[in-house]
Amino acid sequence: MNAAQIEVIGLIAGTLTTISFVPQVWQVWKSRSAKDISLGMYAIFVSGVALWLGYGVLAGSAPVFLANTVTLILAGAVLVMKIIFDRREK
Amino acid sequence: MNAAQIEVIGLIAGTLTTISFVPQVWQVWKSRSAKDISLGMYAIFVSGVALWLGYGVLAGSAPVFLANTVTLILAGAVLVMKIIFDRREK
Repeated sequence: MNAAQIEVIGLIAGTLTTISFVPQVWQVWKSRSAKDISLGMYAIFVSGVALWLGYGVLAGSAPVFLANTVTLILAGAVLVMKIIFDRREK
Repeated sequence: MNAAQIEVIGLIAGTLTTISFVPQVWQVWKSRSAKDISLGMYAIFVSGVALWLGYGVLAGSAPVFLANTVTLILAGAVLVMKIIFDRREK
């Protein structure tokens, strides 16, 4: 397998892990429920993705920057909805 | 900021996004409930992480391989519990 083919695998991997959050955003939005979603996970995950975004900028990697920008928006939306919908249930 | 400092940011970012799944695994295990967790998200995410793991092997990147091995185990555990606990609730 040559370098270009390996990069394609990385691109597919990055696309999958980024778009995977779309069905989660949609499900929480539709159900207005995020009880089973871990606040700790999304707090840590969003922080990590923000650092990945910064790493992409500093290292000059456009794919890392772009993928993590999209992931930050999607995972950030789950985190915000988790906080809002959990508060409403109380 | 020099290259070594940028790499440290990447390492912290990778550690955070990987360990973030620990509180999610723990919460689903403790509550025996994964109703609000998206099956689609975890199916796509686990596939993407498996490809990242393959990319790490093929590209000879130990950090990518290691981080994604741990993430695969944790996110895979959430996926398996989601399937089992949803079935029990029916």
